[in-house]
Amino acid sequence: MIEQDRLLSALRSEARQAPVSGIVDVFNYGRHREGLIPLWVGEGDLPTPAFIVEAANASLAAGETFYTYQRGLPPLREALAGYIGRIYGRPVSPERFFITNGGMHALQIAVRMVAGTGDEVILPTPAWPNFAGAIGIAGARTVEVPMTFTDHGWLLDMERIAAAITPATKAIVINSPSNPTSWMASREDIATVLAFARKHGLWIIADEIYGRFVYEGEAVAPSFREVMEADDRILFVQTFSKNWAMTGWRIGWLEADPRLGQVIENLVQYSSSGTAAFMQRAALAALEQGEPFFAEQYERARHNRAIVSQGLAATNRVRFAPAQGAFYLFFSVDGVTDTDSFARVLVDEAAVGLAPGGTFGAGGEGFFRLCFARNSRDLEEATTRLATALRRIAG
Amino acid sequence: MIEQDRLLSALRSEARQAPVSGIVDVFNYGRHREGLIPLWVGEGDLPTPAFIVEAANASLAAGETFYTYQRGLPPLREALAGYIGRIYGRPVSPERFFITNGGMHALQIAVRMVAGTGDEVILPTPAWPNFAGAIGIAGARTVEVPMTFTDHGWLLDMERIAAAITPATKAIVINSPSNPTSWMASREDIATVLAFARKHGLWIIADEIYGRFVYEGEAVAPSFREVMEADDRILFVQTFSKNWAMTGWRIGWLEADPRLGQVIENLVQYSSSGTAAFMQRAALAALEQGEPFFAEQYERARHNRAIVSQGLAATNRVRFAPAQGAFYLFFSVDGVTDTDSFARVLVDEAAVGLAPGGTFGAGGEGFFRLCFARNSRDLEEATTRLATALRRIAG
Repeated sequence: MIEQDRLLSALRSEARQAPVSGIVDVFNYGRHREGLIPLWVGEGDLPTPAFIVEAANASLAAGETFYTYQRGLPPLREALAGYIGRIYGRPVSPERFFITNGGMHALQIAVRMVAGTGDEVILPTPAWPNFAGAIGIAGARTVEVPMTFTDHGWLLDMERIAAAITPATKAIVINSPSNPTSWMASREDIATVLAFARKHGLWIIADEIYGRFVYEGEAVAPSFREVMEADDRILFVQTFSKNWAMTGWRIGWLEADPRLGQVIENLVQYSSSGTAAFMQRAALAALEQGEPFFAEQYERARHNRAIVSQGLAATNRVRFAPAQGAFYLFFSVDGVTDTDSFARVLVDEAAVGLAPGGTFGAGGEGFFRLCFARNSRDLEEATTRLATALRRIAG
Repeated sequence: MIEQDRLLSALRSEARQAPVSGIVDVFNYGRHREGLIPLWVGEGDLPTPAFIVEAANASLAAGETFYTYQRGLPPLREALAGYIGRIYGRPVSPERFFITNGGMHALQIAVRMVAGTGDEVILPTPAWPNFAGAIGIAGARTVEVPMTFTDHGWLLDMERIAAAITPATKAIVINSPSNPTSWMASREDIATVLAFARKHGLWIIADEIYGRFVYEGEAVAPSFREVMEADDRILFVQTFSKNWAMTGWRIGWLEADPRLGQVIENLVQYSSSGTAAFMQRAALAALEQGEPFFAEQYERARHNRAIVSQGLAATNRVRFAPAQGAFYLFFSVDGVTDTDSFARVLVDEAAVGLAPGGTFGAGGEGFFRLCFARNSRDLEEATTRLATALRRIAG
């Protein structure tokens, strides 16, 4: 029916065919439901902490409301270099950092840099649907490589990746720790992907935004930055959203070789023309004063992960791999295949909002994503409600 | 040399070939020059007024820092409908309005909707360079149609437009009042372009952001909304930047038929994932309380227009058409052809920043753009400095 509309059919097909976000869809379904515990979106329940808001207010009061640097404020780029250098234990140049209107904008620019009409981009799935959205709008084709679910963890089969590479392949997206599966690439996985990229001249779009939400082993997830060398084709997309409760701000960054700086500056100019200076001052405060806040968020996520995992496992009606990183539990429910419908049932019957797995691409069908970056009381209550509903409805 | 770099040459050509903004270029050249009067960028010297900043502060204090509606806050969309309805004297539906991260973001989405690889977009020039930038990044080809300069005004030759239409043409951009020429489309121009669009199935991307900065005749410039009918293919790109001194905020809107709403929502989702709610509250305050501020800005621009026009005309070394709308004087200097270099000379010799005309495309060579949306003292001083320098250097 949509296709028959005269105006719609006059649109460019890439735009017309951009998929509706399945998350937004169920989110809109239950947005106003009273008492609902919303665990469908990748954000917590805390507003941005005051010290960050105050930095924005101070900047506004100082009149920082004019056009600013397309690459970002120099002090913010310096601070990012210091931050990333500290977290990963290796120095990095401020010239590698480009401020964007959110991680999504960074992703849009990264895709635009490397893929367009006629190109293919490899995407291990289940994956955040916005990867495929951005790739499709750029005119390129997303080649999904489904990961394998086991009770011990999700596996990225490197032979499948290798088999998916064609002469049209321009890039591969690696999101680790993963939204939605919480899979974390091993050092071996990363080395293998990098070897493929070098061999076939592919770009790697590395989304390591959950790199500090890791529940076993080291403080940060294995990163491409540990093994990359000059001339490696790696673009890092990043955000301030998750670590510092800034989801609604829309500020993030792209990290890339400084030789790509002018191109990135141009792509910023012709997409958003930069990020508000007062937002950047807030982001600077997050980097400079945000460690205690992040530490609390991390501890809460770790605690909630146990609550949810144990509570749902006890129902004997779900299957999931332990979350290695990020802050999602990605689980299937015995007997449930239509997760779009069942997510609505859970809105109505359990007053809990989950994201249906089909929206995350091949391999996600039959699963639900639950975000546990929230207060523990809510997570306990949501777990109880879900367990009750699952015992009643499912199986 | 750039082409030989291994990393750069691995980029998608549309991205690699995106032009450097000539405005940013000279802006960076003189950014830190003491005492310089910057008239190169399309922004004034006033920070955003306090009542707008306070609305953002209040929203932040209320914790509006979460993800929000991809189409924009309902009250802001309502207010926009009321505002546009009031200004143009005809009712309009809130469902037509989609909030974006600035007018540039609105333009990016509009282009993305209608043109991509293999398509052509007609652009009368001289024009804001970001039109061609956005078109090129989308993979489409910009077909420049140079306007004709006369001392009485710039003329858009409709026969040239007609001659530029090919089977690949998908859209035509009309920016009226124009940045940089201050040309204002007549009602006849608008009717003719609409007739072309209907006949050939073209989209019109209408940039009427300077529609209230008009110096002769009516209070608003002639608009496509006066003559459009259902099924006309018109996308309006708009911004809060110019009327309310909000250039650095990056908030604007796209106005389109509501049938295109889901597509626009998807394109927002996969490019920026929305605009911060606290920014939208600020924009709402601008619409609700911003008329006195706008009126002052308008009066100042009108006054400055006279200062600059008379001051430069008196040198007998410049040529320009009277500014019909917007807030730019677009003038040529006798004997000067390399405006990129001469703009730098004027930075050094007159401490005045102008945008070189070549950056605005065919027909702009030999011209300079001067923004007169600034305090009148600065405009008087800048005019004196320019007149002195022109008498000394040029001709």
